[in-house]
Amino acid sequence: MSANSVISALPFRQVVQKLGLSIGDTSLVECPDLQPEISGVVAVEAAHSGGLSFIEGERFADSLASTQASALILPTSPALQAAATARQIAWIATPQPRLVFAQAIALFYQPFAPSPAIHPTAVTDPTVELGPGVAISAHVVIQAGVKIGHGVIIHPNVVIYPQVTIGDRTVLHANCVIHERSQIGADCVIHSGAAIGAEGFGFVPTPEGWFKMPQSGYTVLENEVEVGCNTAIDRPSVGETRIGRGSKIDNLVQIGHGCQTGESCVLAGQAGMAGRVRLGKGVILAGQVGIADQVEIGDGAIASAKSGIHSNVAAGEIVGGIPARPQKLFLKLLALQTRLPELYRAVKQLQQPPEL
Amino acid sequence: MSANSVISALPFRQVVQKLGLSIGDTSLVECPDLQPEISGVVAVEAAHSGGLSFIEGERFADSLASTQASALILPTSPALQAAATARQIAWIATPQPRLVFAQAIALFYQPFAPSPAIHPTAVTDPTVELGPGVAISAHVVIQAGVKIGHGVIIHPNVVIYPQVTIGDRTVLHANCVIHERSQIGADCVIHSGAAIGAEGFGFVPTPEGWFKMPQSGYTVLENEVEVGCNTAIDRPSVGETRIGRGSKIDNLVQIGHGCQTGESCVLAGQAGMAGRVRLGKGVILAGQVGIADQVEIGDGAIASAKSGIHSNVAAGEIVGGIPARPQKLFLKLLALQTRLPELYRAVKQLQQPPEL
Amino acid sequence: MSANSVISALPFRQVVQKLGLSIGDTSLVECPDLQPEISGVVAVEAAHSGGLSFIEGERFADSLASTQASALILPTSPALQAAATARQIAWIATPQPRLVFAQAIALFYQPFAPSPAIHPTAVTDPTVELGPGVAISAHVVIQAGVKIGHGVIIHPNVVIYPQVTIGDRTVLHANCVIHERSQIGADCVIHSGAAIGAEGFGFVPTPEGWFKMPQSGYTVLENEVEVGCNTAIDRPSVGETRIGRGSKIDNLVQIGHGCQTGESCVLAGQAGMAGRVRLGKGVILAGQVGIADQVEIGDGAIASAKSGIHSNVAAGEIVGGIPARPQKLFLKLLALQTRLPELYRAVKQLQQPPEL
Repeated sequence: MSANSVISALPFRQVVQKLGLSIGDTSLVECPDLQPEISGVVAVEAAHSGGLSFIEGERFADSLASTQASALILPTSPALQAAATARQIAWIATPQPRLVFAQAIALFYQPFAPSPAIHPTAVTDPTVELGPGVAISAHVVIQAGVKIGHGVIIHPNVVIYPQVTIGDRTVLHANCVIHERSQIGADCVIHSGAAIGAEGFGFVPTPEGWFKMPQSGYTVLENEVEVGCNTAIDRPSVGETRIGRGSKIDNLVQIGHGCQTGESCVLAGQAGMAGRVRLGKGVILAGQVGIADQVEIGDGAIASAKSGIHSNVAAGEIVGGIPARPQKLFLKLLALQTRLPELYRAVKQLQQPPEL
Repeated sequence: MSANSVISALPFRQVVQKLGLSIGDTSLVECPDLQPEISGVVAVEAAHSGGLSFIEGERFADSLASTQASALILPTSPALQAAATARQIAWIATPQPRLVFAQAIALFYQPFAPSPAIHPTAVTDPTVELGPGVAISAHVVIQAGVKIGHGVIIHPNVVIYPQVTIGDRTVLHANCVIHERSQIGADCVIHSGAAIGAEGFGFVPTPEGWFKMPQSGYTVLENEVEVGCNTAIDRPSVGETRIGRGSKIDNLVQIGHGCQTGESCVLAGQAGMAGRVRLGKGVILAGQVGIADQVEIGDGAIASAKSGIHSNVAAGEIVGGIPARPQKLFLKLLALQTRLPELYRAVKQLQQPPEL
Repeated sequence: MSANSVISALPFRQVVQKLGLSIGDTSLVECPDLQPEISGVVAVEAAHSGGLSFIEGERFADSLASTQASALILPTSPALQAAATARQIAWIATPQPRLVFAQAIALFYQPFAPSPAIHPTAVTDPTVELGPGVAISAHVVIQAGVKIGHGVIIHPNVVIYPQVTIGDRTVLHANCVIHERSQIGADCVIHSGAAIGAEGFGFVPTPEGWFKMPQSGYTVLENEVEVGCNTAIDRPSVGETRIGRGSKIDNLVQIGHGCQTGESCVLAGQAGMAGRVRLGKGVILAGQVGIADQVEIGDGAIASAKSGIHSNVAAGEIVGGIPARPQKLFLKLLALQTRLPELYRAVKQLQQPPEL
């Protein structure tokens, strides 16, 4: 069982080297005078001596004034750099402070992973094919015809229905469920309680009630997909539901039967897509967005939080509101709505006959 | 363990016969010239040789022009029928192509079901009563006083609290939880991760904080109810929460303590109802609808996606918006909102003194 | 295994005494003539002979006219008291009928709790520290370094990742998951399927796709926190996510990485908070509210159902709408929106040249 901390402490200069940042790089300036010992990565407001933190931009200058961090990853802002130097805080500067900070966390932290072994309480069908180095935790259930790649980690109480494939190095967190015929790619992470490939919600009205449409399709997650806690991604009646390579899906998201996303989409918490929605590449849905049946969203489009999308969105467009409109129009209409009281007063005044 | 395919291939004429459609029926026209061998049901856009698909209406005429299906279930549209014949695709026509397609899927596909047996790792209290032909999968836990009807299928890791009843042929998918005293009818399907009959969210404010209202009631699902993945249906402090016969509930739906639905309601994904909401028969809530405490919705009413309902809705009404209004008014107000810029310009112009 | 009913029947006078209400208390009036035997607590509309129910205020006077309850807890309303007396229903009156009713339920009902014992199918790491009187149910998995206080109840199939602490008397319902390093206080209740302390949703855009921000932080629930079914509370990349003492969170709520709530907050069903949101004390979020990244909400503020909050809210403020505005303005704008047709007509009329 691997512990949390990978290294316990390191001089700042070595941290920088391990991050692969060469000192003297035009994108890297280094405060020369201070070389604190770094014992961990911390939030800037909770930072303490030995802590390495980051500041994303000049709007967080206040944090710099009060932080107790010993070292900072800064943006390429002379003002912030001067301020850090003045406070005797060691720093490097980069155009991508958040990305470098993410890499720094990985130096000091590794997520919990069980050892590669099959727990005796796991129940695996004799027909299951397992790659080398697989960890199958307690009370996992894996049914007939499942194929599992190498280095896969399956946390406790996961259930895998028949005829599923799981790609190399994928991690399945506790209590998630992978339904029959699902195809999960390599390097995916499925978080706790997620349900992948369950029956789509399809019923046909008849005089005797709702007739259940059998759900004979399956769900595909391409490589490097991440699926949040308690998110549900259904399978369709025929054909497939498909999540494109590198797409990241947050908690409690609903993805209906037959939806498709392109590569590198991001779906924030509690977003929902009804049946057969199509997202292009790199589409971003903010929190609690909803998309109606069969809508198509073009590459790189962005839907702002809580928007409700009933018709197609062109590539690159930003939309907002219920129903969603181009963001610029949405904001203009919002501003005009706020001025409605003034408009009513103006009209009232115009209706008065002018004083003679 | 039953396999996926029920039949592997069949001449189209026999498929039609198995669907119980008699040739010559006024609601059934048959393309006489082609009798392809049908090997499966497929989505119209992904169809291939041997595939049977369907087209719901004339707005999908494009699909007909490009499909590779060998046979189609068409609506009673002479234009579509002529187009199919021209493309040498076999077809039948029916007023209900979606329903007939659903029946066709069932010819070629049966959902996975474990064999009727009790897995040795299941933990069942000695007082549990089991009907004949029950399948209890690995790591299931069934507590005291539970009664389970015949032919019930319980997938792995399901937990059933004490004093629950489960009706005949009901299917409980992996990792769902049925709480104490719940009454689940016959022919229900509870999908993965759903939580039925957990404690309602009831707290009384006091100067020392929130006092927990004990939740002594229970939840009833009548026959033929379907509950989606990770949906939660709470029980009330006293009395019951009740889901009417044949109602279908999608994924991630929240149903608060003491709610009641009539027969054949449909609640789409991420819809939510607060406490003691009453739905009549055949009510439809689209995705992400929210309903406030104690609201009553009449028979056959429809709430469009994302609407927020704070007051009662009459039978048969269609509502939309936040707060929800009659759909016609909602759409009218939306249209007027879109014209606000023009209205502001008009008022501005009226305010100018006319040129002399 | 404790049964449901704690006492089976009791004269009303003794019920009142057990509730600690002294007869003659100015806040307590008692109907002197009737002393029915009380056999249970019931909903007022479903009440039957022997049933004790409650009426919260005069707007529920209709219920009083039709209830079959034998005794009622009433508010301090002479009209309701007279009506109850006229119907020969025993009653007490209190300024807090809902609170007293909650206490009355607790006389007749105790939630199911397993006996303190460790089920042989539970898998607990040898390093786990258990307090006295702990109940660990079937198929529970508890990993290395976990510390569990006394009287904790863990229902079946719960998974606890390494280095978690669970405070005294806390209840973990079936299939919930507590992730590594989480700190759960005393007297908490975590409902079925909830996921506490999973990885936050943090990814940094790069030309090669989304780079995963490691999530090295942890989640803290202070004492007396309740978390609903299938709710997700993530941990942050660094630092902590913290839910304040006595806060109550409903089902299917999303709480992003690094959020903080003060004491006694209430988050209703399907509410969602993005990353690093701060709630003060006693904040109330109604159903389906959404809050954007980094927003701060002051003590005692209230967000009405479905509101979408993008900027800070002052203490004590009530907000509504998308985007959220002060409730008074929100309602005013709504009213003006409803009058838009009339406004358009008025402007049209003003545009007509006056008849000569």
